[in-house]
Amino acid sequence: MPPGDRPAARNDHPIIRGEGGVNDDFPQGSVWLVGAGPGDPELLTRKAERLIARAETIFHDALVGEGVLGLAPPTAQLVYVGKRAGRHSKDQKTIDRLIVEAALRGERVVRLKGGDPAIFGRATEELEACRAAGIAVSICPGITAASAAAASLGASLTLRGLARKLTFVTAHARAGETLDLDWSSLADPQATVAVYMGKAAAEAVSRGLLRAGLPGETPVALVQNASLPIEQRFHTRLDLLPLAARTALGDGPALLLIGQALERTSRCAEAARRTLEA
Amino acid sequence: MPPGDRPAARNDHPIIRGEGGVNDDFPQGSVWLVGAGPGDPELLTRKAERLIARAETIFHDALVGEGVLGLAPPTAQLVYVGKRAGRHSKDQKTIDRLIVEAALRGERVVRLKGGDPAIFGRATEELEACRAAGIAVSICPGITAASAAAASLGASLTLRGLARKLTFVTAHARAGETLDLDWSSLADPQATVAVYMGKAAAEAVSRGLLRAGLPGETPVALVQNASLPIEQRFHTRLDLLPLAARTALGDGPALLLIGQALERTSRCAEAARRTLEA
Ligand SMILES: C[S@@+](CC[C@H](N)C(=O)[O-])C[C@H]1O[C@@H](n2cnc3c(N)ncnc32)[C@H](O)[C@@H]1O
Ligand SMILES: C[S@@+](CC[C@H](N)C(=O)[O-])C[C@H]1O[C@@H](n2cnc3c(N)ncnc32)[C@H](O)[C@@H]1O
Repeated sequence: MPPGDRPAARNDHPIIRGEGGVNDDFPQGSVWLVGAGPGDPELLTRKAERLIARAETIFHDALVGEGVLGLAPPTAQLVYVGKRAGRHSKDQKTIDRLIVEAALRGERVVRLKGGDPAIFGRATEELEACRAAGIAVSICPGITAASAAAASLGASLTLRGLARKLTFVTAHARAGETLDLDWSSLADPQATVAVYMGKAAAEAVSRGLLRAGLPGETPVALVQNASLPIEQRFHTRLDLLPLAARTALGDGPALLLIGQALERTSRCAEAARRTLEA
Repeated sequence: MPPGDRPAARNDHPIIRGEGGVNDDFPQGSVWLVGAGPGDPELLTRKAERLIARAETIFHDALVGEGVLGLAPPTAQLVYVGKRAGRHSKDQKTIDRLIVEAALRGERVVRLKGGDPAIFGRATEELEACRAAGIAVSICPGITAASAAAASLGASLTLRGLARKLTFVTAHARAGETLDLDWSSLADPQATVAVYMGKAAAEAVSRGLLRAGLPGETPVALVQNASLPIEQRFHTRLDLLPLAARTALGDGPALLLIGQALERTSRCAEAARRTLEA
């Protein structure tokens, strides 16, 4: 990347940037699990951009947006490894195998994962598969959906004195199983709860938290396709969440955000956005 | 930014990129709260880089690294607004006022915050101060410390079946107050707990979680200065955490990560890193 086009980075890390030398962080036959962020290619990190630009093979799934894939060099091979519902475990093994095989062929492999690889991303399976095969594997973090959704809402997820705890849960139950979350520890009025993969379970989440004692008027925000041009944001309350999720949400990935922190901003955020867009 | 130097973004958002026109997302007199990530300038988002490059005034605090500030254009005014311990509330008001005044003078203002602005970043105060003054204010998300620490450890923060919940807490107590966290809800063997601002409270955290029933051998990772060249990583267990924090940690910001998810990777991560660096 030629210097000069961007404001000079007075304090860049020459070691990390080395290419092909002793300190190259992306040698042949190695693997990076790269956080692709929530979808907007502008929300990729500079590091992810650099790794993608050097990749020879890129494995990606459904959550990785077109815009991000557009940053891949024309020479890179893009391999879609999206999972089909209900067949997760077998498919994950296949993905692990494909990644390892590509690295063993000596390719520079990027495994692009939506959001942050370390959060509900099945990273451990892929890390262990690589390590078991003696392949160097590293993680490049990404913006997780909760951070992107909060930014879109113009809201903080934590609030001094009011929301001192932030919990990420997945409401994804294996096929045929019911969702068993520890509702009483989640139903903390001083916490913000971010529910990943929670669309189908919106009703169970609402019921569980209400039964465990959270008030029906607890503020809830739903953000679908956070950061993409088709993003949608909805504000509702815990007792109306099932209705809101059923009527408002469509096909895209959606995050449910629950707690007092969502309240203070919901009132003014839209007004402010109008000011900005006017 | 001239196209062509980087792999063409086939699907960039022309609207978001507009400068100075109707759709400009950074007009004169507006404010962006920008996530600066954990310190490594490579872990900034592309969007943050673009906003910083256009800023006329940049307010930053102690957690924003030199490398990130190095991306500011030479024409931008950098204003340090770090807080002194024990004087938080007054200082926050001053910061709010300085931001508003700069925007009212018509400047393009970036408020750079370590990590993600929405996570333990006092974003609400600054958002509300801007909105009350009729100033357009938006958030650009950043990589939060927990994501950066997990990447450095080569570990996932969640684990299917084993760590289905991820909780961020702050162990920062106001001067003179003791730390009162809801230990019983935190002491979930199926959760990962990330403790922000937890260095001074490492002993209280360990005691609280042990008393609430977490086993002494629960894996703990400490990451100090995550993502910076001076980063340090330590692996210990819950009962030894106070000793480890006291003897191993120094001045820099540190994150405590607690839970089963930290175990599986600690064994192989170092070996893999050696492979990569060899
Ligand atoms: C398998 S999890 C992966 C999470 C990802 N690793 C992360 O850190 O965001 C998929 C879930 O993430 C959430 N998600 C991912 N991208 C999103 C987006 N752009 N908008 C809203 N939610 C999103 C949704 O809840 C979705 O069901
Ligand atoms: C006031 S909080 C701000 C958190 C920030 N908004 C974020 O999302 O990471 C400051 C705490 O974040 C954590 N932190 C921030 N940067 C870090 C880094 N580079 N390495 C380890 N911990 C860090 C430490 O626990 C520190 O005490």
